Formats: sequence, structure tokens, C-alpha cells
Amino acid sequence: MTTRAIIQPVIMSGGAGTRLWPMSRAARPKQFLPLVSRASLFQETAERMTGGGAVDFAAPIVIAGAAHADIIAAQLEDIGVRPAAIIIEPCPRNTAAVAAVAAAWTAQMRPGALCLLAPADHHIADPDAFRAAVAQGAGPAAKGAIVTFGVRPSEPHTGYGYIEAGAPISDGVAEVAAFREKPDRQTAEQYLKSGRYFWNAGIFLYAPDAMTGEIAAFAPAIGLEAAAALSKAAHDGVICRLDAARFAACPADSIDYAVMERTARAAVVGPLDAGWSDIGAWTALEGGAEDARVAALDCDGVVIRTDGPFIGAIGVSDLIIVATGDAVLVAPKSRAQDVKKIIDELKARGREDLL
Amino acid sequence: MTTRAIIQPVIMSGGAGTRLWPMSRAARPKQFLPLVSRASLFQETAERMTGGGAVDFAAPIVIAGAAHADIIAAQLEDIGVRPAAIIIEPCPRNTAAVAAVAAAWTAQMRPGALCLLAPADHHIADPDAFRAAVAQGAGPAAKGAIVTFGVRPSEPHTGYGYIEAGAPISDGVAEVAAFREKPDRQTAEQYLKSGRYFWNAGIFLYAPDAMTGEIAAFAPAIGLEAAAALSKAAHDGVICRLDAARFAACPADSIDYAVMERTARAAVVGPLDAGWSDIGAWTALEGGAEDARVAALDCDGVVIRTDGPFIGAIGVSDLIIVATGDAVLVAPKSRAQDVKKIIDELKARGREDLL
Repeated sequence: MTTRAIIQPVIMSGGAGTRLWPMSRAARPKQFLPLVSRASLFQETAERMTGGGAVDFAAPIVIAGAAHADIIAAQLEDIGVRPAAIIIEPCPRNTAAVAAVAAAWTAQMRPGALCLLAPADHHIADPDAFRAAVAQGAGPAAKGAIVTFGVRPSEPHTGYGYIEAGAPISDGVAEVAAFREKPDRQTAEQYLKSGRYFWNAGIFLYAPDAMTGEIAAFAPAIGLEAAAALSKAAHDGVICRLDAARFAACPADSIDYAVMERTARAAVVGPLDAGWSDIGAWTALEGGAEDARVAALDCDGVVIRTDGPFIGAIGVSDLIIVATGDAVLVAPKSRAQDVKKIIDELKARGREDLL
Repeated sequence: MTTRAIIQPVIMSGGAGTRLWPMSRAARPKQFLPLVSRASLFQETAERMTGGGAVDFAAPIVIAGAAHADIIAAQLEDIGVRPAAIIIEPCPRNTAAVAAVAAAWTAQMRPGALCLLAPADHHIADPDAFRAAVAQGAGPAAKGAIVTFGVRPSEPHTGYGYIEAGAPISDGVAEVAAFREKPDRQTAEQYLKSGRYFWNAGIFLYAPDAMTGEIAAFAPAIGLEAAAALSKAAHDGVICRLDAARFAACPADSIDYAVMERTARAAVVGPLDAGWSDIGAWTALEGGAEDARVAALDCDGVVIRTDGPFIGAIGVSDLIIVATGDAVLVAPKSRAQDVKKIIDELKARGREDLL
């Protein structure tokens, strides 16, 4: 048996969460909001990748935009987590660049560790089950696999990419037969029935060398510029500012498209049975009527949230009602995906103060 | 032809307007809100009873609670109306006491004038038509009739009292055959069909002596205490504070029940065809989506109002959405009358700050 690998958590905090407007804002996107528990999604993410147990986690690194450096530092301090680094992206360059930077940072700063690349804005109800899944993936990752995590579909969701599982590799881990982009409804229903398809949770576990090699093979410009942006970075305590010119020169592409759909090293841990949700829309947050700031009389199936104003609702069903001090959202749950249309409208009206 | 009577406007500002929560609040009830135009309902009421034309109006008096003296003075100054008096009720004693005080004040301060008693919280789209109706009622009122104003029903409303018109008295004025309390739905539909029934607009035109005499006959304690409260009132500029002990001793009753349902002097001007509405609920205020602070996408038949927060609504129909800085209301239009249930709930929770 080999030595147990150290896991280097890499928290990707680049999301905007516009479908959770009006609470999610540019200056405070959804990952920093206490949407499910008293901790923010970002704090939950950091906490589930700490401690020992099934796996040994190193202190996390966070990759985010400059606008969020302060809130990241404050929220980590709030939960007693000291980050190894807060890496500032001078501009957004999508997840392939982040995966490359994470690999380069880990190879240099934590040699021998595996990278665990995870979005900051997911909720996982059962952190122990998540850590157990990471432990399952660590063996194949240490041998060069780029490991994804597959969630068993509970509905024919058309908003996620799907992973088709192939031949088993080890306990709970399989080869990836294919990555499937967001399907139409009919295809999603077939996926659901077949049982061989998982939702792609957007979490990746890999050895730095493996990722660096695949990026060099399939997206060499990304690997080159990301590594240069890191080697020329400016350091200030835990803050690490990637070089602006080199990072801007890095092509923007997703890790799925740039690497995963092309590599022969893809593996999947599945099913990840940990109560995973990406809180993609208000419908992921049922309830809210028990808040003392809410009076929901004769209401049914509502999603109600407030960060201050009192909400009085009477006789409504299957409705989303969200109030902040300066904005209110009302929509049927069936239109939860269309909240971004309000964002578009606000942009058209020049209301940047509400974005 | 007799001399044209002077009309003494008496604006009753005692309503709470709870069904227009969260905009209507105890400290700023609906009559002081600019709900229909840029002027408040109170300001509209004062303005429609000024100037010459069909009738000659004296400077108005306002009867209200102490909490609203300042806003009344400010809103009148804002529209350039100087009140003859702002009469402060030490406690609410319903409309019969107000009618008695108004009669006593007018008899003493404006001898020969007729009282025009009008709620502060109604909207009348056509003030000229209203003044013409007042002119029609002035003759009978000068001869001792207590004149009411009847609105032709546009629907079988179960929230209003009805007036059954009797024999004609003069042009546009008839005797009152009967006052009918709020009917059930079936009865309201019969009233609507018959054409002989009007909504009781709650506006009264009378000679002080006639009202004083009828109150003395049917509710003598009200007449006695109201007159005493006025004669012992404390004066401070236009502010006239009714004597607290005497006014408290005055039985609380409505003018309709104490006098109108019993008197033989009742007459009705009708139909009052002036676009009357008592703005009894949010459903009286259709629309609102054109406000720059509102984005209503794919919405239909909504009532939307904000006094500050931005409202984004998507794909909702026949819904009331009202937002203030500290409270939000969402309800189907069919539940507009139930807004007071939210008030009850807030009282039960001790949230006086939101009432």
C-alpha cells in the first residue's frame, strides 16, 4: 500500500450566481451568502476540505477576483481557516486556466500533493460522504487519472453536463466513457433511465503533473500563460496576484472542453452520494416561511428569503419571493431560470448599483 | 331664487387604510400617500373642495388624530391651502361625533354655511362632476335635507353600504327609500340589476341645524358631548384640540347608523358620476409596471407599487406586489381584502414598527 496522498484543496470562487439575484450581487455573489446554513457556501466548501479522517487536507488555496479578496479573507478568518494562498485573477479566464494555475502552484509549493479543484458555491449536505468519495478517487489520481465526481441524477435536468461511466477502475471509480454536454429534455430522460449517466459536479481531483501534461497536450497556450502568470505573480502575505499581462494572454476555456472531453485519463467517482447541489436557482432553496421576518399565510410550496425587509405573503403557491433592502424578486418557481432576464434588464437600464 | 349657499368643507381624516399595508402605516395612513397622482388622496380631497365654479367653498376644516396634525399642516401648505381649523380628536369616536362637531363648529364660525363632510381617503377622477353634484344637493340641504351621495354600482360589491333611491326631490336629487347595510353577494347582484341602488359614498351635505337636530333626536349623548368637547377646546393657531374628557364621553357610532338610517330628512344625489373610488384595497390601483423602479417581465394584470426598492417580477398574473424599505406584500388580487390578516399577524408578533 502506498503512502496516503496529501490533498491540496483549491477553491474556485469565480462564479457570479446571477440566478440568485437580488441576494447574489457582483460585490457579494452567492458563494458568500449564508443560503443553506449560518455559514456561507464558500465557508461550507472550505470546511468540508479540512481536517483528517478519510483524507489529509493541506491548508486551502482560493482562486478569485480582486474584488472578493477581502470577503474571502474575512470569511475564512470567521471559521478559523488559514489559507495557504489567495490567488487573485486579474481577469476571468474560465476553469482551464484555474486548473493549470492550481497544478503549477501545488507542484511548486506542495510537492507530492494532489489538487482537489472545487467550486466555492456548491452545497454538500454530507461532508463525510464527500470526503469518502475523495478518498476513493485519490488512488487513481495518484496514478495519473484526472478524476471527476458524478452525482446520480434525481431528475432529467437539462442544465448540467453529464458523465457516462465506463469500465470500473477501482472501488467506486470508473473510466469515463464520454462527457455529454447539456442535453435536451428527451435525452436527459434517457440518461436518467439508463443509470449509467451522472451529473458532472464540476469537482476535479488530479496530480499536478497529470493535469499539466494534458493541458500541454490539448491547450498548450493555456498551460504556458497560466504558469507564466503564476511565476511572475506579486506576493503580499497570503495574497498572490497573478501577472496581469500573462494571465490576460491566457485563452479562456473550460476545463471540461479544454481537457476532459479530450483526455484518455478521465475517471469518475460515482455516484457521489453526498446531497450535492450547486444551488443553481432559488428553487434549490425551498421554504423560508419559518423566518421571523416572514408571514406566509395560506401559502404553499413557496421559496421566501429576506435579508431584512419583512415579507407578508397571502394565498400564493409555488412562488419565489426574495427581498433585500434595495430590491425584490417575485417569480413562479417554474421561471427560476429566468431571473437573469432581470439582470439583463437592469444592465440595459444602467442600474449597476443593483447588479 | 335664494342666495347661493357657502359650503364649509369638513375633511375627515380618521381612517387607517390597513388594507393598503405596507405603504399605509399608522403614522402615515393611505390618505397621505400619493397613490393615484403626485398629490396625496388628502391633498386631492382638499383641492376638489376649493375655488368657485358650481359652488362657493370656504376654507376647509380637517378633523384628525393628534398624530397626523403635522403631516396635515405640511400637506396643505404644500398645495397652498390654508385651513380654517385643524380639529384634533383626543380619541377616535367614529363619524357621528365628527358630524356633530362639524355642525357645531360651522354654526358658530361660518353661520349660514352648509357642511360638506368628506373622507380624506377617496379618489374622485372628475372633481368638476363632484362639485356639480354638490351644487345639486345644496338646495335640498339648505331646506333641511341631509344629503348623501350615491355612486352607481359598477359591480356587485359586498363591501359597501347601499342607498335605495326613492321619489325625486329636485334635479338629480331623490328621497332615500332605505339605507342597506353591506349585502351578501346575491343581494348585491339584485341591487346592481335593479338600477335603484347606489353605493353610499360616505359624503354628507347638510345645514348645521338640521344635523344638530337629528343627532339631538336620535343620539342625544353624542350631540351633547361633541358640542361640549368643542366649546371647551384648546386653541393654538389653526389647531383646535377637542376637550379630552368630554370627547371621550361621547358614544362612538357611525353617522349612518346613528342618524341616516333613522332620519326622515335623508336625500341622495345620484348617480354621482365622477369616477369615485375609496381606494379600499390594492386592487383599486391597477398597473404600476411603468415605474422606472419596476421590471415586470411577462406579467399580466399586476398591481405593483414601490416607494424605493427595485421590484423585479417575472411571469406572474393578477398579483399584488408592494414594496417599501422595510416591508413587502405579495398576494393574489383575489385576496386583496385579506391584507389586514398580515396586520393582525404583525400585532400578534409585537411588530408595531411595521404597523
